[in-house]
Amino acid sequence: VTAEIVSVGTELLFGQIADTNAQHLGRLLPQLGISHMHRQTVGDNLGRVIEAIKLALSRSDIVFTIGGLGPTEDDLTREAIAAALEEDLVVDDRIVEKLRKLFALRNLPWVDSQAKQGSRPQCGKAVENPNGTAPGLICEKDGKVVIALPGPRGEFVPMVDGPVRDYLMKLGGGDVIHSHLLRICGLGESVVEERIRPVLESNNPTVAPYAHLGEVHLRITAHASTIDLAEAMIAPIEQRIREALGDAIFGSDEVTLEQAVVELLQKRDETVAVAESMTGGGLGERFTNVPGSGDVFIGGAITYDVELKKKLLGVDPDLLEDENRGPVSDECARQMALGVRTLVGSTYGVSVTGNAGPSSDKGDKPVGLTYIGVAGPNGVEVEEFHFRGQRDSIRRRAQQAALTALRRVALSRERQGS
Amino acid sequence: VTAEIVSVGTELLFGQIADTNAQHLGRLLPQLGISHMHRQTVGDNLGRVIEAIKLALSRSDIVFTIGGLGPTEDDLTREAIAAALEEDLVVDDRIVEKLRKLFALRNLPWVDSQAKQGSRPQCGKAVENPNGTAPGLICEKDGKVVIALPGPRGEFVPMVDGPVRDYLMKLGGGDVIHSHLLRICGLGESVVEERIRPVLESNNPTVAPYAHLGEVHLRITAHASTIDLAEAMIAPIEQRIREALGDAIFGSDEVTLEQAVVELLQKRDETVAVAESMTGGGLGERFTNVPGSGDVFIGGAITYDVELKKKLLGVDPDLLEDENRGPVSDECARQMALGVRTLVGSTYGVSVTGNAGPSSDKGDKPVGLTYIGVAGPNGVEVEEFHFRGQRDSIRRRAQQAALTALRRVALSRERQGS
Repeated sequence: VTAEIVSVGTELLFGQIADTNAQHLGRLLPQLGISHMHRQTVGDNLGRVIEAIKLALSRSDIVFTIGGLGPTEDDLTREAIAAALEEDLVVDDRIVEKLRKLFALRNLPWVDSQAKQGSRPQCGKAVENPNGTAPGLICEKDGKVVIALPGPRGEFVPMVDGPVRDYLMKLGGGDVIHSHLLRICGLGESVVEERIRPVLESNNPTVAPYAHLGEVHLRITAHASTIDLAEAMIAPIEQRIREALGDAIFGSDEVTLEQAVVELLQKRDETVAVAESMTGGGLGERFTNVPGSGDVFIGGAITYDVELKKKLLGVDPDLLEDENRGPVSDECARQMALGVRTLVGSTYGVSVTGNAGPSSDKGDKPVGLTYIGVAGPNGVEVEEFHFRGQRDSIRRRAQQAALTALRRVALSRERQGS
Repeated sequence: VTAEIVSVGTELLFGQIADTNAQHLGRLLPQLGISHMHRQTVGDNLGRVIEAIKLALSRSDIVFTIGGLGPTEDDLTREAIAAALEEDLVVDDRIVEKLRKLFALRNLPWVDSQAKQGSRPQCGKAVENPNGTAPGLICEKDGKVVIALPGPRGEFVPMVDGPVRDYLMKLGGGDVIHSHLLRICGLGESVVEERIRPVLESNNPTVAPYAHLGEVHLRITAHASTIDLAEAMIAPIEQRIREALGDAIFGSDEVTLEQAVVELLQKRDETVAVAESMTGGGLGERFTNVPGSGDVFIGGAITYDVELKKKLLGVDPDLLEDENRGPVSDECARQMALGVRTLVGSTYGVSVTGNAGPSSDKGDKPVGLTYIGVAGPNGVEVEEFHFRGQRDSIRRRAQQAALTALRRVALSRERQGS
């Protein structure tokens, strides 16, 4: 069974809103064994909506329309569906009666244009919309189905997750598409691909890599008749990937890098503090994104200004004034990491110093040059990075690199049994 | 001139990510007088991508593809464009040479599959991608243009807003749709609407309010034959809104709240430091989002742990242990703000303490309860908030409220002439 989404609304084309409704429905379909290969987005224009629905009907069994069901002149989806299916548009007195009662109940004045929401193609059935006025529609004809869904998110989501889902469960029956996501840090996309090359050729499950700001994500996707079978097909592939990549895999599915690091330190009963210059507090915020991180993350110092690096972290003033070294240097990162570990009394101290741009800094250090230090019971390690991109992405990559470095140090202590 | 977007990626169809790139481009096109009536989304399948590009070429002058330009086997957009345009796909040695240099510069191993990113349809020209590896492409043939853009957001946005925008400026022509955005803090959406009610009825320009995490945005949109004419239509409406809302408008268009605050303090030659508990460094990060904020933002303390509140900020231990007050209290916010101002020696000290959830904290303070303190030359002010929503949004609202409070204190000093 194949489906296609037609999102209707000039505000979507013009980017005034993101199409999170199509995203929501797109997530649901594979879980129901419905495949889904195209999506169209069109403005509020009758001819173009009809044309889009006809194209969708020509290649898919189920066509979803999203939006255009309201009472205004711009709302033309009902007319378009009727035209595309070559059906009459009829007024359904039962729907109109319900609408009138709803308006009375809410003490809203009845305007005749509201009655428009009670019309439907001859073959259509209304789907209740307890969160709004316009009902949805399910129109079955000649082995095809058109399902009209309302655009407002608070109406769309409950209708899709409720009655529409129940309806689709009966149609599905095809294969389900089920996937696992593995998340990797500390390795680039091409190195990951190199190491897992044989599994990349697998057809079912497929393995697809995506690079994402200092992480690589591998999505393993299986087509099977049930979710259990899909899991059984995914397991051996996942096992091979885990053997090839080892510790570089920090988590699966929705686990974030900060969650993985917080859980690792929780397990080891260790704590961490941060000394942030370039990231300005963003690394601390990442730790505190994780609910319950308070037993691991103590806090730290944001030393954006040079003076504060001396005052709070005890960084050597001569170093900071040294033209060749200065605040963006290996040595400064080392002293910051050690300094915050001592100040706070945590197991680890993590420092970030660098130039996020947009231009070279006072010391002429190039944009993207970043030093990350991790001080721990076994001493201190500093890494140098050359990040590319905009200020935001350099700062985000620096956070990622700091979390990755801390994780590596903690894991290596784990392997040493300390 | 008409354009159409073809977004490529199975992860878009399956809703793993929202198509914010198409949204960004969709916003730009009307500003350039380019109309835009369809968008298609297809998975990583060569046949379907070719079919989508051909359909788009049959009804639009400019076709944008987004995504599928990377080095992996899933990346097929170059091949698809060549096939749709009936052009040979050739390897461009100059692009490959640049890629090799880039890899060498970054000390990354060269993998042969990277060379794929150096191929292009015979008629294509590369568009530089300073934020990634794969260049974009502009392919002109028989009066039509296909423009291939990379999927990663940090590469997509600068390419669209830079060289692609410049290229499109020469192509545009029809009526422009032009808008100004006014950004408001410290007032709720319904209060804003009440104050500007008359202008909300205007038809051209239209005025549309949107609430957005502690800010209200007003978009004033005019249709006109040129941008200058649109500007002239917008100006008197904007003037009336500015008179009605005064200081509550902190900026327009892309100006962020942190930018507005940093600029205000720069103008006044004042500095700020932060003492963050609940926000974990996120407020500091907001300041350092602003390039050049180093002369205003000094740094501060992240005191997630109670002990650190005493040690770094000198908060009274008795207060912290007091059952009725504790770390989430008016008095703690006051002492944190004063403490960090003294520690750092800045004009202002801003503190945030609260419970972001997901559950009540040890002191039984409810989720969302937040205190924000601003210490300055005229003393210290503390505000209490009850934020609703998820952990992320509570923390984000707390940052917004802290920036708003600091702005209010600085503006009131400005009005007093101090």
